[in-house]
Amino acid sequence: MHKTLIAAALGALTVGASTLALAQSTEDLIKYRQSGYTFMSWNMGKIKAQVVDGKVPYDQAQVVAAANAIAAIANSGMGALYPKGSDMGTGWKETRLKPEFFEEPEKVREIAVNFVQQANKLQEVAAAGDQGAIKAQFGEVGKACKACHDNYRAEE
Amino acid sequence: MHKTLIAAALGALTVGASTLALAQSTEDLIKYRQSGYTFMSWNMGKIKAQVVDGKVPYDQAQVVAAANAIAAIANSGMGALYPKGSDMGTGWKETRLKPEFFEEPEKVREIAVNFVQQANKLQEVAAAGDQGAIKAQFGEVGKACKACHDNYRAEE
Repeated sequence: MHKTLIAAALGALTVGASTLALAQSTEDLIKYRQSGYTFMSWNMGKIKAQVVDGKVPYDQAQVVAAANAIAAIANSGMGALYPKGSDMGTGWKETRLKPEFFEEPEKVREIAVNFVQQANKLQEVAAAGDQGAIKAQFGEVGKACKACHDNYRAEE
Repeated sequence: MHKTLIAAALGALTVGASTLALAQSTEDLIKYRQSGYTFMSWNMGKIKAQVVDGKVPYDQAQVVAAANAIAAIANSGMGALYPKGSDMGTGWKETRLKPEFFEEPEKVREIAVNFVQQANKLQEVAAAGDQGAIKAQFGEVGKACKACHDNYRAEE
């Protein structure tokens, strides 16, 4: 299943922009991607609070649900939300995407593939319920997020 | 699995506000819920274009990925994003939540349970791949969304 989903996610990086994105404005697409990342960050925060910081008691069902949301969003073909030129524009707020995103497609693809894989693994370890493994994999997902932020997201 | 997830989603309606929500501002919580619905609407739009309107060729992997995202977001415990008083406030934009949301908890719960169930069923029929069944269930999810909008979302 994961292979199919990764293929779908990546397909969208090349095909999606031509089939899905054209019917919608760049501002809408920026809004959708900002929404996806913001919703993932809420779910990352819940896992962090329960499994990393221990500020909230561990509740496996909540952690599983959070990891499912992160993985499903990661696998939803967000590549389609990055049409050329969308390093300029305002969704909910002005995009922070750097133009380098469009100049380094192979590197972007590598970072995107890794992010999807790490999110899928977080979903798996969350379902298994070993808090140590969840904590470790949470760190890997965070690194995968950061790889994109460090390269392609402008400072605020 | 779905029963557990529904329980988690609903648990958040009562427990989540006390455990998770308090660490974050109402404005953040409104932003998270607006993000969740916006991201679901993107995915609903993809299914509609492929299976209802036929504007985009049917791609099962994309429809499955979209339905997975909708279901996972629906099951992520969004009840925690509705602390009392959050019918006022600005996330990405001013909330449209009506105060009646907090006055009719049983009705809200019924609408929320139905929404989660319909989203889970959409995920199931998307995986099975029968376009007629997906189209029919897409309609049911739309009705479930509308039930909340009609009752608890102010007109723009």
